[in-house]
Amino acid sequence: MNYKMIVQYDGTRYDGWQRQGNTSNTIQGKLEAVLSRMDGEPCEVIGSGRTDAGVHSYGQAANVHLKREWSASEILEYVNRYLPEDIEVTEVTPAEERFHARLHAVKKTYCYQIGIGSSKHVFQRKYCYHTEEPLQVEEMQKAAQALVGTHDFQSFCSSKRSKKSTVRTIYEARVELDEESRMVRCIFTADGFLYNMVRILTGTLMEVGQGKRKAYEMEHILEARDRQAAGMTAPAQGLILVNVEYPQKEGTRR
Amino acid sequence: MNYKMIVQYDGTRYDGWQRQGNTSNTIQGKLEAVLSRMDGEPCEVIGSGRTDAGVHSYGQAANVHLKREWSASEILEYVNRYLPEDIEVTEVTPAEERFHARLHAVKKTYCYQIGIGSSKHVFQRKYCYHTEEPLQVEEMQKAAQALVGTHDFQSFCSSKRSKKSTVRTIYEARVELDEESRMVRCIFTADGFLYNMVRILTGTLMEVGQGKRKAYEMEHILEARDRQAAGMTAPAQGLILVNVEYPQKEGTRR
Repeated sequence: MNYKMIVQYDGTRYDGWQRQGNTSNTIQGKLEAVLSRMDGEPCEVIGSGRTDAGVHSYGQAANVHLKREWSASEILEYVNRYLPEDIEVTEVTPAEERFHARLHAVKKTYCYQIGIGSSKHVFQRKYCYHTEEPLQVEEMQKAAQALVGTHDFQSFCSSKRSKKSTVRTIYEARVELDEESRMVRCIFTADGFLYNMVRILTGTLMEVGQGKRKAYEMEHILEARDRQAAGMTAPAQGLILVNVEYPQKEGTRR
Repeated sequence: MNYKMIVQYDGTRYDGWQRQGNTSNTIQGKLEAVLSRMDGEPCEVIGSGRTDAGVHSYGQAANVHLKREWSASEILEYVNRYLPEDIEVTEVTPAEERFHARLHAVKKTYCYQIGIGSSKHVFQRKYCYHTEEPLQVEEMQKAAQALVGTHDFQSFCSSKRSKKSTVRTIYEARVELDEESRMVRCIFTADGFLYNMVRILTGTLMEVGQGKRKAYEMEHILEARDRQAAGMTAPAQGLILVNVEYPQKEGTRR
């Protein structure tokens, strides 16, 4: 039986989503350990994609094939009892046998939180990157607009050139200032993201906000198809995977 | 020179506000260590009141007499650079010499956060107490209303009977349900609180919400003047000191 799950986690103390050999300090590793124990059989949890070490999630999507038939509430109750306090499965839905959380994902939304000003953000400190340099949010927003659409995002990808396509479509990119919490949020929705793409996009937008780059340069950076043309990679701890979308009704069995 | 400070902290890893002998794992201890180093003289930080081990603060007030004259921004910059990441001084104001953060406080507001439902509250887990028992919020709100006014709160105090008055005035008491974050908040404003008072008030309101007590019993609990008459002491981690008020202009020198 195939089940779709939504997984929330505070990534602070984990080595990212993906299980790595024998080290189990990953979200996938923790989920597989608990689900395998419940099902009495080894299982593989398939995420919509990896998140790096230190990245958080409000709504990662995953699926798992289990040997026995469980009700959604049985799974929810069991896994949340045995998962550590910083990982939670918030939803379980029986899925069609062929449903695959990575292959079938059509949209993802990420949010990058930048804590600004002199505030130390005591209660949000693990979920944002803090900078005291002033940010021109309107310039960042202008630069973000240039990213929307279908482009080759090679410049915003950390991994070496490979034969895989680096073309992606960004449906929405916006930069918001939250005055009350002294936070700037960069929010991106796309059909998919390359390795480190959101962090490099955000790092580049920050450089625009700091006046080190101009908003109109974004176009040239895209055209360069060269990682060196873009800005720094923003640190992992400010990044949150917000949501993963699938074609309507995809994956739900009942 | 006397300075008023507003202090924010995540109390999770501290033994409360008050310095205890040689152990310095307290908020007061951390502040005094940094301020003494800056001023070159030992100093005493006077809080508006203690907070227990594990209790948090958005707006604790304190004052400190320093030997040298510093600008507010010099103090802010120095202390926030050397304080740990879970303590922040958010405001410094030069104060009249006679200003005393405890003696002059006229109102305090506390908020107790109860995480409800099956959610583990991954991102708020350290700032709430979690219960899966359903809570009748309207009954809790009714019970809270009976607490407003000037009463002897002996029943809601953990410490032994002493000669000190246990009469306090609660100006506002309300219970709110935040559907989105699955959180029930009990918010109290009073001229002062007895030892563990907010936690016992909240514990008792929770028992009303769980149907173990009736809202109309609050009056009898107050009249009993006996700790045994009230409910459990809610755990420290859900409690947040929100705000401390002083008479207008009190404490500000310029």
